[in-house]
Amino acid sequence: MKILFIGDVVGSPGRDMVQEYLPKLKAKYQPAVTIINGENSASGKGINEKIYRSFLEWGANAVTLGNHAWDKKEIFDFIDDATYMVRPANYPEGTPGKGITFVKTNHGEVAVLNLQGRTFLSPNDDPFRKVDELIKEAKKRTNIIFLDFHAETTSEKQAMGWYVDGRVSINVGTHTHVQTADERILPGGTGYITDVGMTGPYDGILGMDREAVIKRFLTNLPVRFEVPKKGRKQLSAVLADVEESTGKARKLQRIMINDDHPFFG
Amino acid sequence: MKILFIGDVVGSPGRDMVQEYLPKLKAKYQPAVTIINGENSASGKGINEKIYRSFLEWGANAVTLGNHAWDKKEIFDFIDDATYMVRPANYPEGTPGKGITFVKTNHGEVAVLNLQGRTFLSPNDDPFRKVDELIKEAKKRTNIIFLDFHAETTSEKQAMGWYVDGRVSINVGTHTHVQTADERILPGGTGYITDVGMTGPYDGILGMDREAVIKRFLTNLPVRFEVPKKGRKQLSAVLADVEESTGKARKLQRIMINDDHPFFG
Amino acid sequence: MKILFIGDVVGSPGRDMVQEYLPKLKAKYQPAVTIINGENSASGKGINEKIYRSFLEWGANAVTLGNHAWDKKEIFDFIDDATYMVRPANYPEGTPGKGITFVKTNHGEVAVLNLQGRTFLSPNDDPFRKVDELIKEAKKRTNIIFLDFHAETTSEKQAMGWYVDGRVSINVGTHTHVQTADERILPGGTGYITDVGMTGPYDGILGMDREAVIKRFLTNLPVRFEVPKKGRKQLSAVLADVEESTGKARKLQRIMINDDHPFFG
Amino acid sequence: MKILFIGDVVGSPGRDMVQEYLPKLKAKYQPAVTIINGENSASGKGINEKIYRSFLEWGANAVTLGNHAWDKKEIFDFIDDATYMVRPANYPEGTPGKGITFVKTNHGEVAVLNLQGRTFLSPNDDPFRKVDELIKEAKKRTNIIFLDFHAETTSEKQAMGWYVDGRVSINVGTHTHVQTADERILPGGTGYITDVGMTGPYDGILGMDREAVIKRFLTNLPVRFEVPKKGRKQLSAVLADVEESTGKARKLQRIMINDDHPFFG
Ligand SMILES: [Fe+2]
Ligand SMILES: [Fe+2]
Ligand SMILES: [Fe+2]
Ligand SMILES: [Fe+2]
Ligand SMILES: [Fe+2]
Ligand SMILES: [Fe+2]
Ligand SMILES: [Fe+2]
Ligand SMILES: [Fe+2]
Repeated sequence: MKILFIGDVVGSPGRDMVQEYLPKLKAKYQPAVTIINGENSASGKGINEKIYRSFLEWGANAVTLGNHAWDKKEIFDFIDDATYMVRPANYPEGTPGKGITFVKTNHGEVAVLNLQGRTFLSPNDDPFRKVDELIKEAKKRTNIIFLDFHAETTSEKQAMGWYVDGRVSINVGTHTHVQTADERILPGGTGYITDVGMTGPYDGILGMDREAVIKRFLTNLPVRFEVPKKGRKQLSAVLADVEESTGKARKLQRIMINDDHPFFG
Repeated sequence: MKILFIGDVVGSPGRDMVQEYLPKLKAKYQPAVTIINGENSASGKGINEKIYRSFLEWGANAVTLGNHAWDKKEIFDFIDDATYMVRPANYPEGTPGKGITFVKTNHGEVAVLNLQGRTFLSPNDDPFRKVDELIKEAKKRTNIIFLDFHAETTSEKQAMGWYVDGRVSINVGTHTHVQTADERILPGGTGYITDVGMTGPYDGILGMDREAVIKRFLTNLPVRFEVPKKGRKQLSAVLADVEESTGKARKLQRIMINDDHPFFG
Repeated sequence: MKILFIGDVVGSPGRDMVQEYLPKLKAKYQPAVTIINGENSASGKGINEKIYRSFLEWGANAVTLGNHAWDKKEIFDFIDDATYMVRPANYPEGTPGKGITFVKTNHGEVAVLNLQGRTFLSPNDDPFRKVDELIKEAKKRTNIIFLDFHAETTSEKQAMGWYVDGRVSINVGTHTHVQTADERILPGGTGYITDVGMTGPYDGILGMDREAVIKRFLTNLPVRFEVPKKGRKQLSAVLADVEESTGKARKLQRIMINDDHPFFG
Repeated sequence: MKILFIGDVVGSPGRDMVQEYLPKLKAKYQPAVTIINGENSASGKGINEKIYRSFLEWGANAVTLGNHAWDKKEIFDFIDDATYMVRPANYPEGTPGKGITFVKTNHGEVAVLNLQGRTFLSPNDDPFRKVDELIKEAKKRTNIIFLDFHAETTSEKQAMGWYVDGRVSINVGTHTHVQTADERILPGGTGYITDVGMTGPYDGILGMDREAVIKRFLTNLPVRFEVPKKGRKQLSAVLADVEESTGKARKLQRIMINDDHPFFG
């Protein structure tokens, strides 16, 4: 079974890229399931219901989130009704939303998990102990488990990869907005990549206006970051191939679409 | 002019990879200059004189460092005499060593710069203002400028890339030990990559024993990290091609050697 | 010469305390100079021109700031004309405002310095090297030097105290909003206290609404912090006595006014 | 019932102060229970069995710890047998030791709790949820509950104070090594102080050699911190008075012994 995952979609440039290329990617790769990280999809910070629904309309089956999940207050109005949206599961008990969802396909169900790292991020519950719980829950229904681990440091992300190796099918990292080149199948059969990278402006910094970010580093003063509406765009994704019976990954392949890496349909 | 840069060499597995593959890489790519980041080359933490000299013997022309530069006290004994070793230039005035060196080639000199980011790292002097100084100094002698910016976050690294675009030939990032897939020539002509990745154990976490790192995340207790002596290894590098007259990058290409990416000589 | 310093004034409750008690404190202690930290005086975040002028009208001679200086954009409109307002001197070159000012008294001038720590705060210029410069500048005009070092950690603050001992008259700490009990005259003659504490709501957390702060710790979700308009208040201050000829501190005394420590005029 | 608590004992100077003054303090104040924070009692980092036993011999009834608990490996050999030693309860499940102990007195039992903050410290389990559990456990046996909350920031510490107000008798803070002047009885009846301060060298920085700490701030290089063996010393403590039947605090009083605050027996 093929699973397509699109990394952190940033603002309207990111959404435009999804709308334009998701049909093409689906046509080309025929994924059974498509998942999108949407934590930055509303003007770079958070998500709203309209965008969530657009993602599903455009062909996604599930949406993952991260530390920016909560930036638009509207999230609290619809998160509990958004069946196919997951937020990091290791936010404290009582947090709205959920950290696991299941997507039905012709070849069985796919469990979609979302967790968040703690190094240089909020001190949520332990993502390692939490992933044990989620895997247990998922395994009751399926062997095909997809994990988006949203974290800052390469050490925490690699630690998660080795920790879940052989127990989840695919463990992608998100949050740093830069695609890494270390995709691999770990010895236990988990397809792993440290970060899938970002979908949005190609000439910004992490998808935000680069002059503002540089000004911030030069001045240490408060600077408002915005998503540039104009300019070149990119899409970052991975395509996984998972053996349905065992849940082991056969292949994990990076996808990058931008002016330096044009898409060939 | 071709410039080869090998990312953070970790312990003896990393050194072994350099010794084995540097000759092969030089034979294949014929770089005019080879640079190695050696901040982790002595048992994962720091560097000593013997290793520095080995790198030169094995074919490197310059060695860059980072936050781990100071982990072996021996550094203070030889850093001021190590002509071709640079430590991050933005350590405070009075710090032993220097942040810029020049390598002579048949096609002119190459300035080698080393700077360190401040986000989640020591509050050194501003690397952005410092790079302005270093570029000015370098430009007196050459247009070919190579910068190793050793930093944690993708935002600070991309900010540096755009900040120096058109003013340095190549700006590689180091420190996260995971190669990124975002190598590109920025519009001004700077070859940029967020992180070159690590040279050392292939099945560890950032090159350290993975059981120890996972234990640390699970317990929050002090755990001693060591470089695994046995096991598979990898080498991470980039090859740049720079137009000598202008100092503009023509090409920046990732190199990764490991069991999943075997080397073809 | 007596110098009165009032710690971080938070919002309207803090301003009310200044307006009410500053005349009483001046009547009781007869300070030659009164200085106020105003970084939180506008609704808990930043300062505006009207408040700055109120402080002067109510009897202050100078206003110091800190990391929150920039929270109200209006600061940029008047900071360069606010003769008696200082912001941390170690913000990068080019930052609006200044880090040193001089207050004239009948017994000579007092230099008022403001610096900011870097541990868990912005990576500004080195406050230790900067204080050397400021002391040199101040000494050209006066021996009486007052330093507000705005910093998070006790280690950085104590390090500053010992570093300037014998070179500045008074080194108070601010930023943590909790008064410390370690006021002393260091061996070299500098009057030192790690933190003067906060002036504002007595039953909040650092002067902000306590339910909101607790909610933040319990949920790790974004929570808006506001200064409670109602409720009990406190004022935190220190009174220093400095020998005019030498600039050495004779005495440093804590002042705390709240329901548990009523003011006796 | 009177409870005496001595703040972070640092190295041999701190232990000397305990040995010398604990008998005098007990003679003067007649506490029913004496508790010592010992996380730095072995050369500034950690604790060993001999020191733990000394504390009990010298008159302490319980020892609390903090983030430095684990610095001496010997801790793991005796922590599970040290009936009257508590480490922060919110370390992950499976951590050696415990976070609650009970001390018997003629007037009933005292529960001694230890928790650790997470801001700028390890991402342990949520101390707020954990304290709810511990209080529940304690209440089964006694109303007299003493909490040492070991944390860095004033905000997290004050949040804890208000969170447990009316549910624990005394909530002292430790870790910053500087005594705060904000001791008070909160409206619900909890005696609270943000930090009790440190017991050890009086002329160091947080009890460590001050030249080394300043050097670290000036250079950002690794510097070995040691506890100065010679020089003046101080003891920081609080004395609480708790109503036995209700567990409410009647009084909380700071104690500081050093050359500037001599002890009067
Ligand atoms: Fe993101
Ligand atoms: Fe994120
Ligand atoms: Fe490294
Ligand atoms: Fe590094
Ligand atoms: Fe403040
Ligand atoms: Fe502040
Ligand atoms: Fe301590
Ligand atoms: Fe501590």
